Order: sequence, then C-alpha cells, then structure tokens
Amino acid sequence: MTVRERNNAEQLAARDCDNCTETRIITDELKHYQEEHERLCVLLNITREISTELQLDRLLFVIMDEVKNALHADRCSVFLLDEEKNELWSKVAHGESEIRFASHLGIAGHVATTGEILNIPDAYADSRFNPEIDRQTGYKTQNMLTFPMRNRLNEIIGAFQVLNKKEGSFTRDDEELLNAISTIAATQIENAQLYEQLQNTLNSFIETLASTIDARDPLTAGHSKRIALYSNEVAKIIHLNEPRKKVLRFAALLHDYGKVSLSDAILKNHKKLTEKQYSQMRSHPAITRAILEKIQLSKELKDLPFIAGTHHEKVDGTGYPEGLKLEQIPAEGRLLAVVDAFDAMTSNRYYTGRMSFEKVIRILEQDSGTHFDPAFVKAFKKLRLDKLVEILENESAEWLDKTDLSKLSQYTIDDLIFELRFDTTRNNGFKLVDTFKKYYQQEYLKQKERG
Amino acid sequence: MTVRERNNAEQLAARDCDNCTETRIITDELKHYQEEHERLCVLLNITREISTELQLDRLLFVIMDEVKNALHADRCSVFLLDEEKNELWSKVAHGESEIRFASHLGIAGHVATTGEILNIPDAYADSRFNPEIDRQTGYKTQNMLTFPMRNRLNEIIGAFQVLNKKEGSFTRDDEELLNAISTIAATQIENAQLYEQLQNTLNSFIETLASTIDARDPLTAGHSKRIALYSNEVAKIIHLNEPRKKVLRFAALLHDYGKVSLSDAILKNHKKLTEKQYSQMRSHPAITRAILEKIQLSKELKDLPFIAGTHHEKVDGTGYPEGLKLEQIPAEGRLLAVVDAFDAMTSNRYYTGRMSFEKVIRILEQDSGTHFDPAFVKAFKKLRLDKLVEILENESAEWLDKTDLSKLSQYTIDDLIFELRFDTTRNNGFKLVDTFKKYYQQEYLKQKERG
Repeated sequence: MTVRERNNAEQLAARDCDNCTETRIITDELKHYQEEHERLCVLLNITREISTELQLDRLLFVIMDEVKNALHADRCSVFLLDEEKNELWSKVAHGESEIRFASHLGIAGHVATTGEILNIPDAYADSRFNPEIDRQTGYKTQNMLTFPMRNRLNEIIGAFQVLNKKEGSFTRDDEELLNAISTIAATQIENAQLYEQLQNTLNSFIETLASTIDARDPLTAGHSKRIALYSNEVAKIIHLNEPRKKVLRFAALLHDYGKVSLSDAILKNHKKLTEKQYSQMRSHPAITRAILEKIQLSKELKDLPFIAGTHHEKVDGTGYPEGLKLEQIPAEGRLLAVVDAFDAMTSNRYYTGRMSFEKVIRILEQDSGTHFDPAFVKAFKKLRLDKLVEILENESAEWLDKTDLSKLSQYTIDDLIFELRFDTTRNNGFKLVDTFKKYYQQEYLKQKERG
Repeated sequence: MTVRERNNAEQLAARDCDNCTETRIITDELKHYQEEHERLCVLLNITREISTELQLDRLLFVIMDEVKNALHADRCSVFLLDEEKNELWSKVAHGESEIRFASHLGIAGHVATTGEILNIPDAYADSRFNPEIDRQTGYKTQNMLTFPMRNRLNEIIGAFQVLNKKEGSFTRDDEELLNAISTIAATQIENAQLYEQLQNTLNSFIETLASTIDARDPLTAGHSKRIALYSNEVAKIIHLNEPRKKVLRFAALLHDYGKVSLSDAILKNHKKLTEKQYSQMRSHPAITRAILEKIQLSKELKDLPFIAGTHHEKVDGTGYPEGLKLEQIPAEGRLLAVVDAFDAMTSNRYYTGRMSFEKVIRILEQDSGTHFDPAFVKAFKKLRLDKLVEILENESAEWLDKTDLSKLSQYTIDDLIFELRFDTTRNNGFKLVDTFKKYYQQEYLKQKERG
C-alpha cells in the first residue's frame, strides 16, 4: 500500500469513525426520545383515566390503581389533607372505611407538612417509619416513595405513597413520573371535591328543608326523613339502581313539601276538617308537584315532581290528586304510598302511643290491591327488624341496645308477623316479639312517663 | 492500487454505505419520535389547561383558545349539542351571548349529525358552507376543519370547528391532534356540565324555596327574590367579589326562611301583635340562622347562616336578635338591612298602594347611622333607575316599556332624589320623575282597577 493509498484508506476509516460517533449520538438521542415517548404515553393514558371520574371515592381508587401500575409497585395510597380537622385521610381499597390521622404524623405526614420527597429504599431501616400499620395488617413494607401532592397554587393538598417496587427500589425516573401525575391528579381531586361539596350542600339543604316542614306540626316531626330511610331500605330489597334510588330519596324527603302553603287551621287541626278544609288538605301533593316543577332538575331527577306528587294515589284509582290507577302511578310513587301510610300509622301520638303493630300490618295487607301495590307491601315486609327499629326510633337512637339490634338483624317483618300470629318462640328460645315490642312501645312509655 | 487493496477500499466504502443507510434509518426514526414528542407535549399541556377549569363557560373559552394555538389557526368554535331542544349552541368569545341553531344545520350540524370529519380547504367552493355568518360578522372564512366531539360512550356531544389555518390548509396531522384533544375536551365538558347542572339545581331549589316561604303571606310575595336582586345590584356598585356575591345572594333569598316555623296567627296578622307574638316574630332571624347552620356548607358559604341572621340588626346596637353594633354586623348583613327595609316600604299594600318614594328615601337617610350603615345607603342610591323599576315590577315585567327603561338607565336614585327635591326638568326636557312614577304607581293603579 502506498502512502497515498494508506492515507485514502485511513481517511475512509476516519470517515467511518465519524459516522460511528454520529450514529452513536443519534442512537442515544433516539433512545432518549423513545423512553420519553413511553413516559408521555403512560402519562396521557393516566390523565385520560383520571379525567373521566368526578366522584371523589371512585376517583381516588382510579388514581391509586393507575399510579401503582405506572410505577410497577405493589400498592399506592393517596392521602388528602382535611384542613378543618388538621388530619390526613385515605380511602382503604375495596372498603367503605377511611384511615385518618393527625396531619403531621408518619412519613405521609412529614411529606405533607414539609413538601419533601421521601424515597426510602429500606423502610425498616428508617427511624421515621411507623411499623405499627404493617403489624396490624400483616403487610410487609420494603421500600416506599412518598410524594407531596400540590395544586395549581402550589399548595400541598395531600401526599402519594407508593409501596414495594416490584424490582429494585424507586428511581429518579419514578419520582419524575410521579411528579407529573401529581399535578394532574391534584387538579382532578380538587374538581371532585368541589362537586362533592355541592352535592353535600344540596343533600343537606333538602334534608333540612324537609325537617322544617315536618316540624310545623309536632305530630309529623321527622316524618319525611323516616320515609326516606324506609324507602331506601325497600329500594335495596328490590335492587333499585343508584339513579332511581336518588330520585326516590329526594321524592321521599320532599313529598309533603306542598304543605308549606297550607294554613295552620288545616295543618294543625287534628279534629274533623270541614269539607272545604279537607279538599285543601288533599291538594298538598299537587302543590308539592307544582313547586318541584319550578326547579331546574337534571335528567336523572326529571321525574321527581311527578313521583313526589303521587304518594296519595291508590292503585284502584280512588286516591288523589288525580285518581291514577296501578301502572299510571310511577313505581316510586307506589312505594312511597306504602311507607308513608306505615309511618303515619306507627307515629307516636302523645296520648295514645303507637297503633298496635299487628293492626298496622293487617291494614297494609287488607289494602293491598286497592290502596297499595301488593308487590311493595311484600317487599316492605322483608325489611330487617334492626333497620325497622332504627328508623322508628330515628330521633332517639341513644335508647337502642346494640345486642338487641344484632339479634333483631337476623329477622324480617315477615318473621315477626309469623311469630305474632302463631304466638311461637324461636327454637333458640329467643322471643322476637318481646325484643321488638320493647322498642316499639318504648316511645309510648317514655311519653307516658313524662306526661 | 492492487486488486486486494481496491477490495479493501471498496469494502470500507461499502461499510460506510451500510452505515449511511443505518444512520439514515435511525435519523428518520429520530425525526419521527421528535415530532411525536412535540405532539404529545402539546397534548399534555392542553390537557393540563383544560383539566383545571370546571366552570363550563370558562372551560369552553380555554378549549377554543388552546385548540386554535395548537393547530396554528385563526379561530376555533366549540358547538355543543342541546339534546332537549335539538340544537347546537356555542359561546361567542368575549361576549355573554350564545349562537344557537337547529342541530342539523350548516357544516357543524352535518358533522354533529353524521360523525364525519370535514376538512374543507376552500369554504366558498363548498356548497354545504353557509356564507351568511361571514356576511353578518365581516369575517372571511378560507379553510375549515370540523370535527365531531365524542364522549367516552362514543356518543357525539358536539363539534369542533377550526377556521383559517395560518399557513396552507389543515393536514392529516391536524386531524389526528384534534382527535386526541377531542376525547379529553369531551370528558371535561361533561364534567363541567354535571357541575353546572348541580349548581342550577341548588340555585333554583333555593329560589323556589324562598318564593314558597314568601307566598305564605300575599303581602310578602316575591320579597326574597327582590332582596336578592337589589343586593346583587348594590354588590356590583361596591365591586364585591364573586364568592361574596354568591353568599350574599343566598343570604338574601333565605333571610326570612325562619318564618317557616311561625304560626299563621303571627305571620298573617297585620294588626297589632301581642307582646308574646311580637317576641316570636322577632325570633325569625335567629331561627333562620339555626336552620341554615344545619346545612353542610362549602368554605365559601360558611358565613351564610350568620349573615342571613343579621338582617334585622341595627348599626347602633338596637336591632335584633343579638343587638350587634356596626362592625359586629357582617357587611353583607348591613347591606341586607338597607334593601330589606327598602323593599318592605316600597311593597304594594292592596288598599294603600306604595309609600311615597320621597318618604321611603327620607327614612333611609334619617336612619343612616342609627339603623343603617350610611355607606350602604349611599351605595344603594347609586342604583340605576332602569334596574330599580325592573326589580320593583319583577313580577309583572310585561308592563315595562323598553324606551322608558332605556331613558331611565341614564340616571340613578340620586338623580331622581335631586329632581324630586328641586322639582327640576332635565335640560333635554326629559322629566325623570314622571317616567319613574308611571311605574312606581302603576302596580297601585292596577290593583285599584281590579279591586
């Protein structure tokens, strides 16, 4: 090889070398973008999942699930700051219950207070870790990443805690991904909290309103709330879906709202009403309906005025205000008719106490098919006796004995009726009727004592 | 160069060639990922911006702005389907007004009905394009991309319309980007609609409730709503912020709610009350407060019960129920005191009509500093006369003449007072007092006619 030839070859080799370097740089860059791409795709997917959920409870589960998967971890908890109570709280997966503790306690408390990120590769080697919860739950925490959750105003609203990375421990990349998720999750959590607050306001508004109407007459105090509680129990028995449960609950609370426009002379007159007064009294379901129709209701509540206005209709068409027959009355209205009559008959009268339970049930049964829809009378009789007693004594719950309730929870109104009619005692010697009557007549006894 | 040497060189060249190809492939891939990266970053940013906004109006503006920028377009409109009315509607930027049309009309209607994507490079060459809006607004549409907006259930809930791409016309890439934005926007719009619905339900619930309480006594019919309208006008005059306006509005609507528990004997007795009845009557603000305190209120509404309960306090401490003095009464309560008294004095009495306007204002002025906070009396007198007449005649708005209203809108209560006291006529010959009194006394005349 001549010198020139060697130079040529070296030049070629050198070019090759340049190329190699270039290729390497480009390849590195490509790798970086590919990883970044994957990260962004994960982030976008999580964002989409999170953004669909506006109900706080469900949202928290979605977030915990998504974060757990994105970080290849075994568990994730979201702790939220309750500013009023100065506590951190978290939903427990698949349970109704919450964990709550003072907002400065534990590692989550430390992070929520200081805003520090804590990436702890060996929990048991860290003095801040509280092994108490592991001891209680039987879980074994190995490593944990705890991250403050900040809203748009950079205020800390809680903390993420991710436990037990599946391979190795949590990395810088995990921290960065969690950082990005955190902002989006915080925004959606704040939206869900706003929505929940508004729902709570509306719900408690309606409850308060119902109770003030009932309170105009001491005889009906608590009536609407009890109707709502009974309806909800029957709704569970017949497996009504959530949207219909909701409209039923509002209809129950507001069914007597039309009474707001009745005069005291009619409302508080417990003697015989004149013909004219009686006809005004009978106008209250129509007034309820007319008032509720003025309210802007969402699609799922559209039937509320109609339902609330039919609680005095009878399936044979002899009810009021419209004399509707069986299927013309909405199912919720037929259900309300049963529980409304039941509550009226079982209310305390100051001097006479409650009507005998046998008689109340006899009336419901006798009027099945004329006044009441037999299907709902039947469903009502499946009510568990602990629930029944709790609702009957809703306003003096402190009188109830837990052991009695636990015993009563084994039986339904049907069981009670059989025992009443056949005068039997259970094989285990438990006398249902005695325990039930203790509460059914208690209010009566209390009143007698006072009076 | 020997054959071997040439082969070596060729081999090197060939390797170089392979490398070139590889580099090219990698470079192409890199370019792809870089573009994809940019697209995802845009998408994530848009998602973040969109997800913070739960108020529908503001959300729509954020979306239109973000889409416009992301697609380098001149304009973007979001059309939403109103299922009840079978219409498409859109917010007009920087305006309170809406565009509305039958949901099958125009290009947006076509897209919202068929679910097709329409990418039209030359609008005027397309027969489906309706040039009418351009003609009205003076805008010149060149190209347009119209895209259906679908929710999670794949139902069409509206359409995006992007106008006038800044360079060239809309590409496949634009369509893809819009597709990705669409899902996220649809989700957030549905969330915002849920939130708005709930707000509307709560608002109209409170309004209905207030009006049913007022209606118990014909003399006070419409009172709470008028108080809310007056308060809102004064709030604008003193530049109260939105959260405080909201609590003021609810307090105005609910200030008399405690009257629900008063008996007819007290409420409808327009003669002299007994000492005992009078003391019960005076208990109504405290009852209002107690009832409202039972409601679960959000942070921004926390003061509602307190405010609503202070509308009969006087700044000199002689009011009720608590005898609070100036700063002890919340500002909103002091404002309510002024408008509550004004409305009581200017209400129609069936047989006597309204108290003379001069006398009403004289009383507000005389009692400034004892009953009323002078600052709020002063602010109240800045009320525009068209607003005043509209609120006075709130329940018979059909009597109002638009030309009169437009004239009255130039003047305030202060102007009217000067004209009343100095018995002047405006330079332009317009006699304020005459036009005002026509409405102020009209209701009185109407009643007389009927009676």
